[in-house]
Amino acid sequence: MSNNPSFVLRKVEDVAYEERPIPEIKDDEVLVAVKKTGICGSDVHYLVAGRIGQFIVEKPMVLGHESAGVVTKVGPKVKHLKVGDRVAMEPGATCRVCDDCKRGRYELCPEIIFAATPPYDGTLARYYPIPADLCYKLPDNLTLEDGAMMEPLSVAVHAVANIGQLRANQSVVVFGAGPVGLLCMAVARALGASRVVAVDIVPSRLEFARTYAATETYTPPKLEQGESRLAYSERNAKAMMQQLKIEERGPSGIDLVVDASGAEVSIQTGIHIAKHGGTFIQLGMGQAEVTIPVTTLLIKEVNFKGSFRYGPGDYQLAIALVSQGKIDLKPLVTHRFSFDQAIQAFQTTRAGKSEDGKPVIKAVISGPDVDPNDPL
Amino acid sequence: MSNNPSFVLRKVEDVAYEERPIPEIKDDEVLVAVKKTGICGSDVHYLVAGRIGQFIVEKPMVLGHESAGVVTKVGPKVKHLKVGDRVAMEPGATCRVCDDCKRGRYELCPEIIFAATPPYDGTLARYYPIPADLCYKLPDNLTLEDGAMMEPLSVAVHAVANIGQLRANQSVVVFGAGPVGLLCMAVARALGASRVVAVDIVPSRLEFARTYAATETYTPPKLEQGESRLAYSERNAKAMMQQLKIEERGPSGIDLVVDASGAEVSIQTGIHIAKHGGTFIQLGMGQAEVTIPVTTLLIKEVNFKGSFRYGPGDYQLAIALVSQGKIDLKPLVTHRFSFDQAIQAFQTTRAGKSEDGKPVIKAVISGPDVDPNDPL
Amino acid sequence: MSNNPSFVLRKVEDVAYEERPIPEIKDDEVLVAVKKTGICGSDVHYLVAGRIGQFIVEKPMVLGHESAGVVTKVGPKVKHLKVGDRVAMEPGATCRVCDDCKRGRYELCPEIIFAATPPYDGTLARYYPIPADLCYKLPDNLTLEDGAMMEPLSVAVHAVANIGQLRANQSVVVFGAGPVGLLCMAVARALGASRVVAVDIVPSRLEFARTYAATETYTPPKLEQGESRLAYSERNAKAMMQQLKIEERGPSGIDLVVDASGAEVSIQTGIHIAKHGGTFIQLGMGQAEVTIPVTTLLIKEVNFKGSFRYGPGDYQLAIALVSQGKIDLKPLVTHRFSFDQAIQAFQTTRAGKSEDGKPVIKAVISGPDVDPNDPL
Amino acid sequence: MSNNPSFVLRKVEDVAYEERPIPEIKDDEVLVAVKKTGICGSDVHYLVAGRIGQFIVEKPMVLGHESAGVVTKVGPKVKHLKVGDRVAMEPGATCRVCDDCKRGRYELCPEIIFAATPPYDGTLARYYPIPADLCYKLPDNLTLEDGAMMEPLSVAVHAVANIGQLRANQSVVVFGAGPVGLLCMAVARALGASRVVAVDIVPSRLEFARTYAATETYTPPKLEQGESRLAYSERNAKAMMQQLKIEERGPSGIDLVVDASGAEVSIQTGIHIAKHGGTFIQLGMGQAEVTIPVTTLLIKEVNFKGSFRYGPGDYQLAIALVSQGKIDLKPLVTHRFSFDQAIQAFQTTRAGKSEDGKPVIKAVISGPDVDPNDPL
Repeated sequence: MSNNPSFVLRKVEDVAYEERPIPEIKDDEVLVAVKKTGICGSDVHYLVAGRIGQFIVEKPMVLGHESAGVVTKVGPKVKHLKVGDRVAMEPGATCRVCDDCKRGRYELCPEIIFAATPPYDGTLARYYPIPADLCYKLPDNLTLEDGAMMEPLSVAVHAVANIGQLRANQSVVVFGAGPVGLLCMAVARALGASRVVAVDIVPSRLEFARTYAATETYTPPKLEQGESRLAYSERNAKAMMQQLKIEERGPSGIDLVVDASGAEVSIQTGIHIAKHGGTFIQLGMGQAEVTIPVTTLLIKEVNFKGSFRYGPGDYQLAIALVSQGKIDLKPLVTHRFSFDQAIQAFQTTRAGKSEDGKPVIKAVISGPDVDPNDPL
Repeated sequence: MSNNPSFVLRKVEDVAYEERPIPEIKDDEVLVAVKKTGICGSDVHYLVAGRIGQFIVEKPMVLGHESAGVVTKVGPKVKHLKVGDRVAMEPGATCRVCDDCKRGRYELCPEIIFAATPPYDGTLARYYPIPADLCYKLPDNLTLEDGAMMEPLSVAVHAVANIGQLRANQSVVVFGAGPVGLLCMAVARALGASRVVAVDIVPSRLEFARTYAATETYTPPKLEQGESRLAYSERNAKAMMQQLKIEERGPSGIDLVVDASGAEVSIQTGIHIAKHGGTFIQLGMGQAEVTIPVTTLLIKEVNFKGSFRYGPGDYQLAIALVSQGKIDLKPLVTHRFSFDQAIQAFQTTRAGKSEDGKPVIKAVISGPDVDPNDPL
Repeated sequence: MSNNPSFVLRKVEDVAYEERPIPEIKDDEVLVAVKKTGICGSDVHYLVAGRIGQFIVEKPMVLGHESAGVVTKVGPKVKHLKVGDRVAMEPGATCRVCDDCKRGRYELCPEIIFAATPPYDGTLARYYPIPADLCYKLPDNLTLEDGAMMEPLSVAVHAVANIGQLRANQSVVVFGAGPVGLLCMAVARALGASRVVAVDIVPSRLEFARTYAATETYTPPKLEQGESRLAYSERNAKAMMQQLKIEERGPSGIDLVVDASGAEVSIQTGIHIAKHGGTFIQLGMGQAEVTIPVTTLLIKEVNFKGSFRYGPGDYQLAIALVSQGKIDLKPLVTHRFSFDQAIQAFQTTRAGKSEDGKPVIKAVISGPDVDPNDPL
Repeated sequence: MSNNPSFVLRKVEDVAYEERPIPEIKDDEVLVAVKKTGICGSDVHYLVAGRIGQFIVEKPMVLGHESAGVVTKVGPKVKHLKVGDRVAMEPGATCRVCDDCKRGRYELCPEIIFAATPPYDGTLARYYPIPADLCYKLPDNLTLEDGAMMEPLSVAVHAVANIGQLRANQSVVVFGAGPVGLLCMAVARALGASRVVAVDIVPSRLEFARTYAATETYTPPKLEQGESRLAYSERNAKAMMQQLKIEERGPSGIDLVVDASGAEVSIQTGIHIAKHGGTFIQLGMGQAEVTIPVTTLLIKEVNFKGSFRYGPGDYQLAIALVSQGKIDLKPLVTHRFSFDQAIQAFQTTRAGKSEDGKPVIKAVISGPDVDPNDPL
């Protein structure tokens, strides 16, 4: 392979390895040798559909944005990093000067350069240049594979701790037991939630959630013939409240609902089960439009908030929670691939399971010349 | 008339004056001689439909809840009031001991006794017994008619100042230029909003809004044949942003959107025009369910909050803003009725205009033996 | 003994058992048979000095306010309790109707009736009447002795979680390793603090703190001859920062400093070690006036907050943290006395150690007819 | 004069005009032709003492940091400014990458480059280079003299609106009626404070405060012989509360106290008059250490916060309040000087009055070739 081999999405369903030049870095940047990269649903979505909303792949783009690696070059203005440091990489470089950047909401920066969001290249290459302040040194007790997982974990931290403002002893329901939903449950547990209820329609996912971070699980009933989604969601909410002894008010009510599914019925049900004055976080992307029981939301004064990517402090908290042993990321990495198996990694993630039938939670691709079975 | 003549809704479309006993008061209550009572859409709704959501009129109920009057009897434990005091009356008596009452969110109290919400009697009577702390002494420069208006004004204060947390120099859009929408505009202006945009489909309402509290107005275009509501709302948002030079980001973006209309297209449009990180307040009740552009809400991290009734400090701020001359309530009282004309007051409010064609903003019914044209 | 034997402070240094009538209860109250009562420094202070600040013992007063017991009688309006329930008792009954009560800051209520704060009787009696909402049912895995400890634990919860708003992974320093300081450390740990530094001048207290809840300890140096307190505190802060590798800024800075000592040098040192933008909580009462480095506080924008008693949610969180196993109260109860040994309990607490030399953290007095060695 | 004449503090009491080269600008900077510069107490302090706390003048330094001017050169990455734009200049350039910068507290950035704080040059020169995002375009209805005043006004906005979180209808007391105190009063009024009490010992300053922004004034009594400062401050607080009908609790209590004097007795008095649960802002710098009534602060749960410089949004709000006519800066500019009269400007500010006896509130020095009497 070349100096900077890169895994490139050329157009829909067309990926290839390209030889790219080794990137130059600016004075406040470092060059990272990328060692571990997790595959995210959005990566697969670009491969399959060529777009997510307004973001359209119009020219070849390197894929990947959940990465960790080793610093190999350091710009002259960088103080806190040196060659050889093992770092998790936050993949969104913001402008630093807009109102949102300056008031502590940089995730909203309109000029953000986000890895593998068109037109910007991602991290599935030998080297990736990045502003030094977006690299977080990994404590010795974390692997680079853990480091790659900091990206989805920071999404969960942002939703639960930052936007959701979860406090100890509050109760949480998470809809969707995929990777991000599971990480939301883990964060809720790590922050001292009194109960963490996992909701999903796939029994095996609930089983895993229960062993991983949920205190309870709930399987929604089937939609009946002719039943509207709204009637269904109300019935679902009632069944859930009864089965789990949840009240809309008082100490047994649900303080924080996180939707990590993007499914309309989850959102509807979630508004019904939130307690009066409770918070609902929309984290999962699904249909662009959904119908919600707005009068219920109004009368209960539910706070319905969108959560997008991550902001100040999220990476730091994510790393700390894992380093302190409050969250274990290892059970989530179910499949590992070498750099030249990247296509298989995408196919496996897309299929949701490998050829041997094992369900995928997270597939990780190693950098060139890295043993995929060594978490480093 | 008798000792405590009362205007009673017996069943749907059936109202009558009844002679009721003068109420006893508890040690911490006062008895108020009700002098002025505004008519609200919800009062009319009970008259016409016999219910609002889960609240159903199952036995005769005195109507009215927007009232002010004069203290005529004082319980032995009451310290801050005396006979003769002119007071605005907050119509929801809460339990004081539940978690919501104790943590400063008493509007969510499940045991609330709310005037003219079944099964509790309202204030359209000669006398009304009420806990003393729910009576707010009116400054000398306010009339009892102003006092009756404190109820809808407190609804607006709760939405804009308390739930919406409006700060000086923020920009506001209010959908719906009915009484509550107008009051939201007035509160936004009084709190120093940089711009207050009124949106309505009735030109005369926008004209009034402009002279009253809005800095700008906007008339939505007509729905085109075959156009979906969602496509329409997106087109509407774009037209609005262009016409009013609103940006989704940065200093010209809309910080706070208040929906006082309950209309689905308003809610949809409102989410589109809110700035990144902005706040949307759902205040108007309309359809129980609406479709919202949830992905837009998520990516912009919009904070979508329900606002219900009023909580700690809202009545005090409402009275202060009027007393300080920052809000003028007088232009909103368009129709005045004596106690024995209560039926006409309801009919006029229901029709939206009086027989002479004058549009109703707020109709006020005076107490027995009170000159309806004297604001007292 | 009589029907309601009570342990009464008649005047300074003069206590006696009196036979009091069994109290009547109001409709919303319960009568609790008091089983366990912890002794607090303030109880001893009234005994020794007859006053704390403006609160002066002018007539005989039953002592005690850290209590738990069993419900023996229930007012007709009480819903959530029944005879036989084991409850922790929050000893401050507030007016429910003032602005502070209604906005969620009831600890500031000017009309508060606080047990064993003159002129109100305390809980060291066979029976104590109390509003039902101030009784918190104990989960089965908590003893009544644990229940008595909920009062000081709620003081710590109020300081650290409510006023201090500690978030997971923040760093904490607590000055003073007495009972309340130890509980602050325990709460900080339970809420996920990254480090909890105990500071005290008594080595044995630091040793205990380290085994109990602190991650690190620090012993201040001695004051040098002729050294001013301010110079000393600056020197102390520098030594502390060096020894514990604390920085004033950045990730290793101290987010939350709690002074549970009331000592001037602790307060001064605490302001120096707090990070820029950090929070300092004044919880310990000592000298009425202290000298602080105010320019340092200003330039660092330190938030210096008083914490007094407890407010909404504090008792609930205290009970939950113990019930979930995140805080263990048992090691703190070092001395146990029967009801008729109350005087010895006070003498022991006053001396700081029992006759066998064992240091007191918390002494607990049992109710009449209760085995002091059975935590119930 | 030369290309970039600059007014330089060489050492204590030694100033001179130097000819400096015209500064180069970076890609994201602009070069501003400085037209108006206000003189601040800190400028005078460096002249007289050569240091403020840890900041020591060790090499020649251009003075001045309250400036506005006209953009004369624009870096290639700058989008929102062009040559000829009239701008107010925020004089602190921060690192953008530390935790404080990223979480919206950039005033705490340890790497801040602040004009005329050693070792960094200030703005009293023909030209000053500055990051473009620190230049705020002035609306047409503001002069460049108004623009220079945005710096002290932003200090007041930061203290009252941002750190103090003043809400409409709250009551405010400001100690110290110098320039910054007056601006705090103006901000409080502009944000809707119900009452704004000015406290000072100089009658003429109170007279001005009353005509400018205060609703009431208070003159402290004289210290009696042998009276301690603490006893005096308690007596002072009682007199003040009585005279102004202020209560420690309830609606007439003081919600927000701002100390803009730095005087110990003001701070002591301020803690006494703040209401329970109220906020005290330390803004004025005076003695490095002061004695405070800490038990009072604790029992009242007063929130005592330092306010330093300004942060996100402060300049924008300052400009908006003036542009909307809610604050008038013109009465504060009492003395005007040409660039070559800079020494007289400093002498006048130092003396507190000009030779004709007129008290100084703010002296403004114009740039080279600018008519000092034209506010531009």
